[in-house]
Amino acid sequence: MSEHQLDKQETRIFSGRSHPALARQIADYLGVPLEKTHSRHFTNDCMEVHLGASVRSRTVLIVQSLVKPVSEHLVELLLMLDIARSAGARAVHAIIPYYAYARSDKKDAPRISITARLVADLLSTAGATHVMTMTLHAPQVHGFFSVPTDVLTARTEFARLFSERDLKKTVVVAPDVGHAKSAARFARMLSLPVVAADKERVSDTEVLISGLFGRQVRGFRQALVYDDEISTGSSVVEVCKELARNGIDKIIPICTHGVFSGRAFERLGAIPQIPELVTTDTVPQRPSRCPVALTIVPVAPLFGKALWLNFTRQSIGGLYVYGQDAPA
Amino acid sequence: MSEHQLDKQETRIFSGRSHPALARQIADYLGVPLEKTHSRHFTNDCMEVHLGASVRSRTVLIVQSLVKPVSEHLVELLLMLDIARSAGARAVHAIIPYYAYARSDKKDAPRISITARLVADLLSTAGATHVMTMTLHAPQVHGFFSVPTDVLTARTEFARLFSERDLKKTVVVAPDVGHAKSAARFARMLSLPVVAADKERVSDTEVLISGLFGRQVRGFRQALVYDDEISTGSSVVEVCKELARNGIDKIIPICTHGVFSGRAFERLGAIPQIPELVTTDTVPQRPSRCPVALTIVPVAPLFGKALWLNFTRQSIGGLYVYGQDAPA
Amino acid sequence: MSEHQLDKQETRIFSGRSHPALARQIADYLGVPLEKTHSRHFTNDCMEVHLGASVRSRTVLIVQSLVKPVSEHLVELLLMLDIARSAGARAVHAIIPYYAYARSDKKDAPRISITARLVADLLSTAGATHVMTMTLHAPQVHGFFSVPTDVLTARTEFARLFSERDLKKTVVVAPDVGHAKSAARFARMLSLPVVAADKERVSDTEVLISGLFGRQVRGFRQALVYDDEISTGSSVVEVCKELARNGIDKIIPICTHGVFSGRAFERLGAIPQIPELVTTDTVPQRPSRCPVALTIVPVAPLFGKALWLNFTRQSIGGLYVYGQDAPA
Amino acid sequence: MSEHQLDKQETRIFSGRSHPALARQIADYLGVPLEKTHSRHFTNDCMEVHLGASVRSRTVLIVQSLVKPVSEHLVELLLMLDIARSAGARAVHAIIPYYAYARSDKKDAPRISITARLVADLLSTAGATHVMTMTLHAPQVHGFFSVPTDVLTARTEFARLFSERDLKKTVVVAPDVGHAKSAARFARMLSLPVVAADKERVSDTEVLISGLFGRQVRGFRQALVYDDEISTGSSVVEVCKELARNGIDKIIPICTHGVFSGRAFERLGAIPQIPELVTTDTVPQRPSRCPVALTIVPVAPLFGKALWLNFTRQSIGGLYVYGQDAPA
Amino acid sequence: MSEHQLDKQETRIFSGRSHPALARQIADYLGVPLEKTHSRHFTNDCMEVHLGASVRSRTVLIVQSLVKPVSEHLVELLLMLDIARSAGARAVHAIIPYYAYARSDKKDAPRISITARLVADLLSTAGATHVMTMTLHAPQVHGFFSVPTDVLTARTEFARLFSERDLKKTVVVAPDVGHAKSAARFARMLSLPVVAADKERVSDTEVLISGLFGRQVRGFRQALVYDDEISTGSSVVEVCKELARNGIDKIIPICTHGVFSGRAFERLGAIPQIPELVTTDTVPQRPSRCPVALTIVPVAPLFGKALWLNFTRQSIGGLYVYGQDAPA
Amino acid sequence: MSEHQLDKQETRIFSGRSHPALARQIADYLGVPLEKTHSRHFTNDCMEVHLGASVRSRTVLIVQSLVKPVSEHLVELLLMLDIARSAGARAVHAIIPYYAYARSDKKDAPRISITARLVADLLSTAGATHVMTMTLHAPQVHGFFSVPTDVLTARTEFARLFSERDLKKTVVVAPDVGHAKSAARFARMLSLPVVAADKERVSDTEVLISGLFGRQVRGFRQALVYDDEISTGSSVVEVCKELARNGIDKIIPICTHGVFSGRAFERLGAIPQIPELVTTDTVPQRPSRCPVALTIVPVAPLFGKALWLNFTRQSIGGLYVYGQDAPA
Repeated sequence: MSEHQLDKQETRIFSGRSHPALARQIADYLGVPLEKTHSRHFTNDCMEVHLGASVRSRTVLIVQSLVKPVSEHLVELLLMLDIARSAGARAVHAIIPYYAYARSDKKDAPRISITARLVADLLSTAGATHVMTMTLHAPQVHGFFSVPTDVLTARTEFARLFSERDLKKTVVVAPDVGHAKSAARFARMLSLPVVAADKERVSDTEVLISGLFGRQVRGFRQALVYDDEISTGSSVVEVCKELARNGIDKIIPICTHGVFSGRAFERLGAIPQIPELVTTDTVPQRPSRCPVALTIVPVAPLFGKALWLNFTRQSIGGLYVYGQDAPA
Repeated sequence: MSEHQLDKQETRIFSGRSHPALARQIADYLGVPLEKTHSRHFTNDCMEVHLGASVRSRTVLIVQSLVKPVSEHLVELLLMLDIARSAGARAVHAIIPYYAYARSDKKDAPRISITARLVADLLSTAGATHVMTMTLHAPQVHGFFSVPTDVLTARTEFARLFSERDLKKTVVVAPDVGHAKSAARFARMLSLPVVAADKERVSDTEVLISGLFGRQVRGFRQALVYDDEISTGSSVVEVCKELARNGIDKIIPICTHGVFSGRAFERLGAIPQIPELVTTDTVPQRPSRCPVALTIVPVAPLFGKALWLNFTRQSIGGLYVYGQDAPA
Repeated sequence: MSEHQLDKQETRIFSGRSHPALARQIADYLGVPLEKTHSRHFTNDCMEVHLGASVRSRTVLIVQSLVKPVSEHLVELLLMLDIARSAGARAVHAIIPYYAYARSDKKDAPRISITARLVADLLSTAGATHVMTMTLHAPQVHGFFSVPTDVLTARTEFARLFSERDLKKTVVVAPDVGHAKSAARFARMLSLPVVAADKERVSDTEVLISGLFGRQVRGFRQALVYDDEISTGSSVVEVCKELARNGIDKIIPICTHGVFSGRAFERLGAIPQIPELVTTDTVPQRPSRCPVALTIVPVAPLFGKALWLNFTRQSIGGLYVYGQDAPA
Repeated sequence: MSEHQLDKQETRIFSGRSHPALARQIADYLGVPLEKTHSRHFTNDCMEVHLGASVRSRTVLIVQSLVKPVSEHLVELLLMLDIARSAGARAVHAIIPYYAYARSDKKDAPRISITARLVADLLSTAGATHVMTMTLHAPQVHGFFSVPTDVLTARTEFARLFSERDLKKTVVVAPDVGHAKSAARFARMLSLPVVAADKERVSDTEVLISGLFGRQVRGFRQALVYDDEISTGSSVVEVCKELARNGIDKIIPICTHGVFSGRAFERLGAIPQIPELVTTDTVPQRPSRCPVALTIVPVAPLFGKALWLNFTRQSIGGLYVYGQDAPA
Repeated sequence: MSEHQLDKQETRIFSGRSHPALARQIADYLGVPLEKTHSRHFTNDCMEVHLGASVRSRTVLIVQSLVKPVSEHLVELLLMLDIARSAGARAVHAIIPYYAYARSDKKDAPRISITARLVADLLSTAGATHVMTMTLHAPQVHGFFSVPTDVLTARTEFARLFSERDLKKTVVVAPDVGHAKSAARFARMLSLPVVAADKERVSDTEVLISGLFGRQVRGFRQALVYDDEISTGSSVVEVCKELARNGIDKIIPICTHGVFSGRAFERLGAIPQIPELVTTDTVPQRPSRCPVALTIVPVAPLFGKALWLNFTRQSIGGLYVYGQDAPA
Repeated sequence: MSEHQLDKQETRIFSGRSHPALARQIADYLGVPLEKTHSRHFTNDCMEVHLGASVRSRTVLIVQSLVKPVSEHLVELLLMLDIARSAGARAVHAIIPYYAYARSDKKDAPRISITARLVADLLSTAGATHVMTMTLHAPQVHGFFSVPTDVLTARTEFARLFSERDLKKTVVVAPDVGHAKSAARFARMLSLPVVAADKERVSDTEVLISGLFGRQVRGFRQALVYDDEISTGSSVVEVCKELARNGIDKIIPICTHGVFSGRAFERLGAIPQIPELVTTDTVPQRPSRCPVALTIVPVAPLFGKALWLNFTRQSIGGLYVYGQDAPA
């Protein structure tokens, strides 16, 4: 419980099944009990959800991270929003620490869906009146939401972590030119240089790194590989190998959303230059499965504080990702 | 291929992953090729769908039955609708043979979702301009859709099947008073009497049959147990046992949507008075798993004909469930 | 005036012309004055309504029962909602004790309107932000509303009334299998058995009762015929006659919405086994026109209490019709 | 039947109960049969409507004039629109020759409804995709509609009628300064001067004419009193009396919408200077009730031609009321 | 600062660049600081706006008068509304003292825009939840807004000004029959007669006055020419000249919205009978450019008081233009 | 006129005032006359637009590039869309070659507007049913539109131009890491390497280039600086200077949208290594003002062909920017 308490009578917090531990921490931070949610499947596999406490004329917070199985968790979230709305809640806040669909943010091919926009619309249809999330794959995804939306960042927390470490001969590396902006900002917070790998994606799991990358990183000893999300880690792995090939002997991958799917832990652990991974718990983490040190920045205090500031009419300033551009 | 062909240039048919065989039969009926749909999951488990043929300024039919895993199939359907809409289709028809959510049609408890309405709204948000489905759990669910919706029935097909059989001393049984209307209509088509069991639902899988039921069915020899949907079959099983206890020696369960989940086949097969089950293929059927005869009424011709009538500006009259009330 | 008072400064109550007595009772219950509404027709027959007190930034309750002349009362209600909304009310609650359109809840024929859905949409368009009503013809109609909606029930009140009477050899009768669920629940509250008549509707005013009904009710002495609504009473009359023919010597028709149109009173009064009718005042009642005893359960306390609970953020639990399924 | 025929397969015309004769004339003009509409009231007074021919993928025209009883006719129109939309019509045209609500076009007092806007929104909600009407009380009412709307005028027809008469010493009189613009345009078409009465409305049925009016009309012999609508005629009667007092010896009231409610005919007939009334049949007329000559300009050809031009992609130019400003 | 203070914590006021002086006066009246707004153009000429204080969960007032350059000011207003909405404001009030588009209120020709309706819709899209403005060109424009809208009037202030002057042999003149209603009401407040000029608009800058006008005004000595808006003043100038020609020797033009564009001041100043112009400051005024006396009625107290009444739940009665019909 | 002709009866093309030459070329390409548009300002500075040909039941194309003055051109576009929609057009296509607002695509600071999303919503409100544009500042902006939207690219045309030139020792340079993806794709089409400058934006007109950039470009002789848009050119100028400092002796800036505002031409012309600029005419170009060679790729054939493919139901494949990712 923090100094930032909300009115227990006014507020109700519920969690979907994706990440109850995080929901409980946010509830604890705000001094509000986490109410029960009962989810089950009918015998025809349709989901049924029941919210365990009255929401009538109250402010409702629904916490759901869109982790695997994503479709299940999305549908559960939509049902919870619909219940809160139709049961007369005054406001319905969707707290989505990891908005997985953000990666579907543009038409990479004809006749695909910009799913990040579609899901934003579905959330409105189901009843969300406000969305709070963290670091979107591209800052433009913010504009997909038609209700007020706050996009928090863990960048300041990451910078605080490294500001106390030895950063001599260190370079920040963006594994993709398309998202180098955020790495550049992180680098600036630590007064470090930044380089971006010109990765060519061969498939969802294979990438190639262009030749110019090598000459940029030569001479550095340590690399902080900074990304928004690591799933199977295929592109990060390629970049780390390239860094190792070019003489970097300490590499620390950092990411906000640590999905670590497939053989991610295994492949990253197989690179001897990587002693540690740094991430947050927007996705539930199981450190025991990680072969190297896994440093986890907890996000509950960030969400808790942002919600408290929101309900007490204060700017959520420094917690925000302004075009992923906010100063330290 | 039937006599009811649509213009190949004008129409595009796509299938989600729930029931491609049915989609292909509908496409064949209409003389239009079934185009390819590519669905896959990103490494963070988000679904990505790609429609394999141009839909620009065309009429698009998307076939998806909401069978298990329901959330996955719903999300895939929403993506497909969104793609068709945003790629400039002229009209987007959602063909949903089994609309599983229809069972969530009312507030049985506080703070649950009338999910059948929510999903109808999500379909509109995603881009459906017309919905075609079959026998909803309650006829009122029709009113949940805000786009034009057609609800087909297989009742006439079922009646045709039994009209050629021996119906002496036969009674039609509705396993639930709440949905007895449809059974009553089926009975009338065969000039048979009807009774409804006053089932008390103890849980999603357990029911009790009230005492008055027995004295109504005494004296009959054969019972046609008529329901819209059989999932685990728990209520049908109880009704069949009660029928057996009261001297009925031939019982044929009939249902439009044969979900047959859990131990349904096993439990129904364990009742010696049941020689046969009758259903349709709105849900994909695996007859080999059924211990007794499984008679399957194909629905592709019904959907095909209804679509053809629709596009040629004709009334779809007799195919329709008017409040599940249409005369024979 | 009850113990459940609302803030007079915060709340404004207005009544349409359909049922001012009920509106006044609800206002009295809540300790809030019933404000004046001025309705008149222009010389070209268009209606003009004027609300007699400022609604700016206030919570507004508008009470209108959709009784004859229904179109007039609907239009008046729409105007009142529009006035409240456009004059800056904070929230606009439509209190519709009798939602007559609920009977048009499905497509019984091609090219008719599911008017219960249409009118729900019109209420939203006109400005209703919340609807409160009582016992809908089918519980699914709840799902037609796109704003939060509460459906109250008088079943508990009816059960309380009969729990003090002699219920020996008594059976509860549903005059229609299609709506037998609600009767079954009422029966359970009094631990009585229930039977449903398989009525075949020949026209809006004529019905036939199927042969099996008789053998179910034989042996009982008293019947409580339980329905949601009695208009001309044609189907109830047929059922009562059938009951009488099968030896029942005391029959009490009970209904939530006592429309009693046409020759309803006359025809029910002509059956000697009927000593009494039981209903509520969602429809204004004129007991003097009823040839037998007319017991009226007042609904103002139910609506008053539900509203008070709503505004004080409490669950309206026991007052609610959950799928018309709430336990005693 | 005119030279302006529409495709019978493509188009369906239905009439509400307000003015079937006009609907039939429009249908005849366009060479399309007038399909049957079945309207009735349930025993609880709710309206039920059934359209008598398939509208699937067709263009539907629904003709309804908002004459007395206005609420009934409005509700019938809304149901008809809803049926056409939900039964899959391609486009739904509401043909409303007399849009009676146009008089409620502004806030004359606090907490009244701008009903002309509300009803325009209700028509959209119910499914109208296009509206066609004639001469609105104020040209601004056009802007209340959110679907494409055409406002026809009969002014050219009226001018044609009088262009063949003796117009010596004739003045055109607008009975109200607030709507004098339209009269001024009519006057210009006949090269006549125009004056407007500064009427002070005491109540819906009583008016006073200001003193300056008299000196303007002195010297003229004939007056054409030009208004959009005559209901009880109270204001026109006062103006005519004032004209008579000031020496005019022939007065002809002209109005597009001849409502003639209450004692209108009687009161106008009692003024000896009035030999004739001129109007259209947007409102059904009963000439036999009129004590003086009643000249009726038929509007079916105007609506028919405008519809034909619309469907054949032609400008409806001269039939239109451009700010009620179109030149002759 | 007035006695009508709003809660500083609850309310935020911002001004666009059109009329910061007025915004400051309204802020002062309400005792709330005027927050900073930063507007600039990107190098590609797109506008960027930044609101200088947190609006989270607050009531936001945005003051913008649609004066020249109108498109710039409209776009700035839309951006400001969008910012407030998407940054989580509880309510967003658009205070638009001069709604210039009100003149585009009807279709004067085919294929033009009823821009007053379009802009009202754009304001809703951008996030306005309430609009407050003053005297619209036609009272019907009120109905174009889909959010609650208040239309204030300065008529009472104008009447107060003249009630202390010599009004012998004075007539009120409406320069256009189409908008004579408002002048008639002003006249009544001062117990003066009113006449309307039948102006024929030859072009946007040229008008002709009809012959009957002269004989109405003869005998009067002073004329108060009352209009809602004066732009280039072409029609007012013609009316004043006609008045002068008919012997009026003192003419005072009065208008709510003093646009005075082009050579308006020059042309009005050239008429020797005009010693003074009377207007308000809904449009920023530069008296030094006016060759005659320019009397300016300040509107900040009217807007301030109306806002205060609104937030304190009081009727804004006498400040309102009811169909421009409110009594003194 | 091309081989790709549209039906003259079916299609109407109009141009706003921003770029009539381009509109005419598109019209010529499609073999459809460019209809007249009349735009003017009222004396109060409000814009009035009149479309010069009937659009009833037709497909309407409106061409407007959002160049300076942007607000004026945006408002003119909104009016044109509104006119087409409300005059009964069947479909309204907004052809916006340069969508200037695309730069406002994220929240770079609190309380600013994601204007690219707001304007997309305004276009829908005004009536656009389809949008066609070219190369958006970020590919995600595509997701801001709620109507079907096509984003064309000139990349293939640029590549064709350079494929015939000497590309030895040539590197493609992205002036900003945030938008390096598009440059990388262009590079790949020509089999060239790519580097991105880590530009730090000091203000809208000043930038700094980070130190690592230099060592990447050393050894190359020619640089193609590839950007989506050049306005004042401040960042391109800094990059070009840095390139010159690092030994590149031929630099060719290439951009889709050549805004060239402020002193852009002058500053670029002052760098001796720049012999030529390459751009398109989405923005009207004045080559005479450019001190070096200005090569202009015409876009009318691209828009013309895409429109023709769209109306003839063909995929617009290679013309499309798929996430700015399409292969050569």
